[in-house]
Amino acid sequence: MRDFLPADKARRERVLAVIRERYRAHGFDEIETPVVEEHLRLHAGMGGDNEKLSYSILRRGLDADGIRAAADDPAALSDLGLRYDLTVPLARFYATNRGQLPTVFRAIQIGPVWRAERPQKGRYRQFVQCDIDIIGDDSARAEAELIVASIDTVDALGLEGGIVRVNDRRALDWMLDSFGFTEDERPGVLITIDKLDKIGPSGVAAELREREVTAAAVDQFEAFLSRPQTLEHNPYGERQIRKALPEGAPDEIVAHLVSLGEAVTAARPSTGPSASSGQVAETEFGGESPLVYDPFLVRGMGYYTGTIFELAHPSVDYSLGGGGRYDGMIGRFLGQQVPAVGFSIGFERIIDLVADVEAEAAQAVVLVHDADVPVAELLAHKSALLRDGVARVRLERRPKNMKALLERAAADGYTGFAALRSGDTVGSLEVKPLS
Amino acid sequence: MRDFLPADKARRERVLAVIRERYRAHGFDEIETPVVEEHLRLHAGMGGDNEKLSYSILRRGLDADGIRAAADDPAALSDLGLRYDLTVPLARFYATNRGQLPTVFRAIQIGPVWRAERPQKGRYRQFVQCDIDIIGDDSARAEAELIVASIDTVDALGLEGGIVRVNDRRALDWMLDSFGFTEDERPGVLITIDKLDKIGPSGVAAELREREVTAAAVDQFEAFLSRPQTLEHNPYGERQIRKALPEGAPDEIVAHLVSLGEAVTAARPSTGPSASSGQVAETEFGGESPLVYDPFLVRGMGYYTGTIFELAHPSVDYSLGGGGRYDGMIGRFLGQQVPAVGFSIGFERIIDLVADVEAEAAQAVVLVHDADVPVAELLAHKSALLRDGVARVRLERRPKNMKALLERAAADGYTGFAALRSGDTVGSLEVKPLS
Repeated sequence: MRDFLPADKARRERVLAVIRERYRAHGFDEIETPVVEEHLRLHAGMGGDNEKLSYSILRRGLDADGIRAAADDPAALSDLGLRYDLTVPLARFYATNRGQLPTVFRAIQIGPVWRAERPQKGRYRQFVQCDIDIIGDDSARAEAELIVASIDTVDALGLEGGIVRVNDRRALDWMLDSFGFTEDERPGVLITIDKLDKIGPSGVAAELREREVTAAAVDQFEAFLSRPQTLEHNPYGERQIRKALPEGAPDEIVAHLVSLGEAVTAARPSTGPSASSGQVAETEFGGESPLVYDPFLVRGMGYYTGTIFELAHPSVDYSLGGGGRYDGMIGRFLGQQVPAVGFSIGFERIIDLVADVEAEAAQAVVLVHDADVPVAELLAHKSALLRDGVARVRLERRPKNMKALLERAAADGYTGFAALRSGDTVGSLEVKPLS
Repeated sequence: MRDFLPADKARRERVLAVIRERYRAHGFDEIETPVVEEHLRLHAGMGGDNEKLSYSILRRGLDADGIRAAADDPAALSDLGLRYDLTVPLARFYATNRGQLPTVFRAIQIGPVWRAERPQKGRYRQFVQCDIDIIGDDSARAEAELIVASIDTVDALGLEGGIVRVNDRRALDWMLDSFGFTEDERPGVLITIDKLDKIGPSGVAAELREREVTAAAVDQFEAFLSRPQTLEHNPYGERQIRKALPEGAPDEIVAHLVSLGEAVTAARPSTGPSASSGQVAETEFGGESPLVYDPFLVRGMGYYTGTIFELAHPSVDYSLGGGGRYDGMIGRFLGQQVPAVGFSIGFERIIDLVADVEAEAAQAVVLVHDADVPVAELLAHKSALLRDGVARVRLERRPKNMKALLERAAADGYTGFAALRSGDTVGSLEVKPLS
């Protein structure tokens, strides 16, 4: 977990302000939930591996007997925990507050989550997620709005050329069925497929054989993975999707994925950023498609039920975010099925990629003073500057090295300085520019 | 702990933006620390009663033997905890990052803290504090800047007429000495004096007698409390301070309090808010004084070493914030004395008092559509509106009760609406105002 010094903190807040503004532009509204949720809810099986990484809060008021008894029942030690994502809290929030929310609810959540990750480069134990979710809409409209809003947001941060890899859990299920895997084998097979990028087709086949799943299905899958493919990049659309899947993919799933592509393309500016992604799709609406169909995209969480997506950028080899449809989760908390789909941007993963967002231009003055200038005089001048429209005033005692002070002030965004010497009797200060 | 729905969340963020902007105007810079600190640090005796209310995080990886052993050593159950204030983390932050910070460091911290309070009106277990601190300046300049910035901030929120009650721990110590209390008796006596507003002079005297502290000192104190006083409100200044203390108060302490008053008054606009506080002080600098000297102001925390202050407002009978000088705390973490003084605004206590801060005026459009309008068409229109300078666009499926939808949209800050019926082939939408 990290401290953020002023320059870092200011930059993070400026980037978050852009994200917030873009999300809001697309019709989403921000909410906030407590960082602490009930232990049972955090461990209801909806958090996947993150449940194991969660921080639990010690139950208050445990006495020695209570602690001793917990040796056989460690869950008794904790009644609360720190959230490990924003999705489980959102489902709980929706169940709690449904009566006060619109039928189709578009939520923004921006805040920290905690996971006891082993420390490594780019992984933190407290990190910020920026989520948008649409609850109550089971149509492709919801997926399309989320993808367009997310791409628009990374565009606004100067990360044009973002790509969204898309798949559908139902397409994955159908494909595994068609190879001959049983339904029971599916979760394990998906875990292995998720490693395709890392271990390649032969690695996947080998690991599946170790799993001792239906052997004939593994053979078929391996053959499919090693089939001859043209290297030609097809634009996102029905032809590409059908070519990427085994023959006979259900029309309904293909049509859903196709309509998603049309909607996202329709919303992209036709004179948009250059085609750095290599994916150009011409449609009647103009604009280029940021979508790429990936039949082997899995996304780890068990709760996904339909479309899944992952945000990538040509400049890095890790994903910047992702999400998908999770129509079953809210029902777990509410006892009534409500469709939901979400897209999360991993803030810590983009903050280092983003060139700084421009700070608002404003006059900011450093007021350098001798140590013995009376406090009352100093504060009167400071207030006068603020009243005269200066946005920020910082007092600084005159140091030996005036140059270093002024350089530091300029780096901190200050635009001018004024000096107040002991014995001065000035009505108003002369502010000189910091060049 | 609470959920914040969109309207509440937006209002909280608008108010926080004003606080941030005002704090920054006064030359402070925002930092952020993790919400989790080491358990030992949170329980180093610097948190007063808050230490008892803190949430501890369960140590990870404890096995049954470890848990059983902890029955005799409960501290072994926890290595981390949630912060209960922003002052202990700031002292730790300063000790960690000192090399990268300016000699006089003016910090803003805005964030949640956690205390296991018994739930009651106006008390929450997760709540936001807004702190400013000046580290590295032992002069009254620091106190004056903090007070002026804090008053300016509540003014900017429309809470003009705020009053800052001021005292100095050294004045309290001297006063108790002069009555004859011993140094050992001081902490207990201060706890009792802190209740003066609630239990009155006779209650204080009775409780002190129960404490079995030096009897003659209690008699003297009681006589002092019941001395005849004029009801006349003196303006803040030397005369008032000397009258409020027993005779012979040390010149140095009085001079410090007086200079603070002069500095704060000097910084107040002379054509400021009306004198609703009843405290008007004319000085050569003009402006009215928001300060009131209160010789019995204690502030609970043990770490205060000098000036202490509390922010009040005529509209409520609880304090809105406060702070003081804590020159000893950073030395505890750093092994080297560094002067520090802070002022905290209790965000949850002011948010309900503040009339809403005006949201920026911006065109926001609700796009009402029939269910069967193709998704691609919808999103193309949404994007076109955003590209044409509309700040926010929200899609809404046409409901039976159109009036209710439009009223809700207007309440959410939307300014216009457009309709898209199935079969429409419109090049651009007509946006009508939501009146």
